[in-house]
Amino acid sequence: MSEILLTPGPTPLPDYVREALARPIIHHRTDAYRAIFRRVAVGLPRLFHTAAPVFTLTGSGTAAMEAAVVNLLSPGEEAIVLLGGKFAERWQHLCEAYHIRAVTVPVAYGEAVDPAQVEETLTRYPAAKVILATLTETSTGVVHDLEALGRIARAQDRILVADAISGLGADACRTDAWGVDVVVAASQKGLMLPPGLGFLSVNERAWKCVERSRSPRYYNDLRLYREAAAGDDAPFTSAIPLVIALDLVLAKLNEEGIEQVWQRTATLAASVRAGAARLGLSVFARRPSNALTAIAVPEAKRVVEAMHAQGVRVAAGQGEMAGKILRIAHMGHITDSDVQAGLKALGQALAQVTTGAQA
Amino acid sequence: MSEILLTPGPTPLPDYVREALARPIIHHRTDAYRAIFRRVAVGLPRLFHTAAPVFTLTGSGTAAMEAAVVNLLSPGEEAIVLLGGKFAERWQHLCEAYHIRAVTVPVAYGEAVDPAQVEETLTRYPAAKVILATLTETSTGVVHDLEALGRIARAQDRILVADAISGLGADACRTDAWGVDVVVAASQKGLMLPPGLGFLSVNERAWKCVERSRSPRYYNDLRLYREAAAGDDAPFTSAIPLVIALDLVLAKLNEEGIEQVWQRTATLAASVRAGAARLGLSVFARRPSNALTAIAVPEAKRVVEAMHAQGVRVAAGQGEMAGKILRIAHMGHITDSDVQAGLKALGQALAQVTTGAQA
Repeated sequence: MSEILLTPGPTPLPDYVREALARPIIHHRTDAYRAIFRRVAVGLPRLFHTAAPVFTLTGSGTAAMEAAVVNLLSPGEEAIVLLGGKFAERWQHLCEAYHIRAVTVPVAYGEAVDPAQVEETLTRYPAAKVILATLTETSTGVVHDLEALGRIARAQDRILVADAISGLGADACRTDAWGVDVVVAASQKGLMLPPGLGFLSVNERAWKCVERSRSPRYYNDLRLYREAAAGDDAPFTSAIPLVIALDLVLAKLNEEGIEQVWQRTATLAASVRAGAARLGLSVFARRPSNALTAIAVPEAKRVVEAMHAQGVRVAAGQGEMAGKILRIAHMGHITDSDVQAGLKALGQALAQVTTGAQA
Repeated sequence: MSEILLTPGPTPLPDYVREALARPIIHHRTDAYRAIFRRVAVGLPRLFHTAAPVFTLTGSGTAAMEAAVVNLLSPGEEAIVLLGGKFAERWQHLCEAYHIRAVTVPVAYGEAVDPAQVEETLTRYPAAKVILATLTETSTGVVHDLEALGRIARAQDRILVADAISGLGADACRTDAWGVDVVVAASQKGLMLPPGLGFLSVNERAWKCVERSRSPRYYNDLRLYREAAAGDDAPFTSAIPLVIALDLVLAKLNEEGIEQVWQRTATLAASVRAGAARLGLSVFARRPSNALTAIAVPEAKRVVEAMHAQGVRVAAGQGEMAGKILRIAHMGHITDSDVQAGLKALGQALAQVTTGAQA
């Protein structure tokens, strides 16, 4: 029996994805591949809820975050970084690496960004043209209020960048309507693919920054991607099987409709939260994501191990969350029967660990 | 019937690789995955013919080339770039992007680097500590004399970096014995995997440069990779299925023995060159690679298309080679029966195009 995978990335692969990955490989400078590339170029913006182009990089989500930083910001500039978890902190590390001054807005783990605090920070730092935010913080299960952030960013004429690596295709992200200028995503979460592709939607406002940025870049240089995309190609050899499988995923998700995907995921999330409450457990996030639920659990590490012994893989806490929470994903190809099995295993594991502790 | 793929990347996937790619995905922060990671960390250096560690990046070969540049060189420094083809020129573009002055050694397309000329250039540029070279130039089918270059680099105390993206696992590359300090490779050539992984072997001499480099970097920062590798992990989410398949490929190749793999590939290469001669065609490269053969062909673009109509995919010329050559790969999983079918299709295509031209 293969295990039930409820980790917030990688998420389980549908059979049609696995079948696509196993096909004989095809060459990428061919009409057949260019046709796939063209369909993906149409399908991705629909999923990203934007009219802007979405660029696909061969790399992990961090590569796409780095691409956002180096294409939008120059050494010596300031950026507003909204904190609140391990992955938000990655924005800060990227800024430091590229000599960009990160003006941080601190947020307690488990809390969502306070839009009023962001507004006040923007007023104090008028030179910081770019806001580096997070849609869904994977380390805490918080979904931030990107709609409010978008309103504030537009009012003060800033560029809003959202790491939606864990949120895309799970938590609602109305990119254009909310005024999010750049959305970063990756393949191994809501997109139901293995890790290996990073994505960025970049609208015309943000593109002006791309043209102005003096940060050194080559592999991540979006100007090369835009130029190559005009010929239905990527500037560097693509991860071909992933792009072929992405084409199939986009067809499925866009056929269902992204709004419907969000709704389906929300229902699953509600079911997990209700299950946790039935077990007497509380949800860690004050503004919980629909992509994953972080649950405060005593002896979390041992509970995660006991669940694994029952064939269910969930994620432990990371960094300062280690031992305090566990995280159950409910996005992508994860079904209601998967999460019910997860909740059952959680209940049994808790009983086991509690009994064990008493023995 | 699926087509016979004789392109110099991607190369055909063995069935066991396709089967591995199609497995249910597993989480990467698990004992099962760490065991794979450890085996790969042992298997890669054997294939690279080095005692140095080999780092695996999620990205294409160009990402690994960029990692070599930013980890070894700082803005304002000089590097010696050995030219001779489209991919050697990528070293130059990377240097330009990162504000490193590229001192180029020009080499005519189809020719190999002249070691005496390199020696003379090194003497003239004593401050250029790093030489950016190529083992196998994919655009011309030339294999350069890395052994001679290694001797010269050591004699003048320089760091020698070789792009072996197309050569590794095909053309002989005695990394340690020849004094090659950094070898860059990728998954989709001799390693018989889809594109999506880049590799760098980095010896202790080169590691001193990594510690000294002031180039900005994060996703490609080898210090993060070395730190994570100590815990059998990567700093960023790996392309899990590719690493699992890599583990199987390394077991196969190392069981055969890398010297034997080189010998087998050399035999296949000789067979292709003999076949070209029988058709009255000449090999374009003066120092031909065993990974691929570039053949000078009249009306090359039409010949490539006519071969494809017969179910054989070879590569046309790139850049200034367009229309002048075609390129047949004979590395990785490509067999003698594949290349014989390729040669037969080439003969028929030539006859067809010549007749068509006369009609």
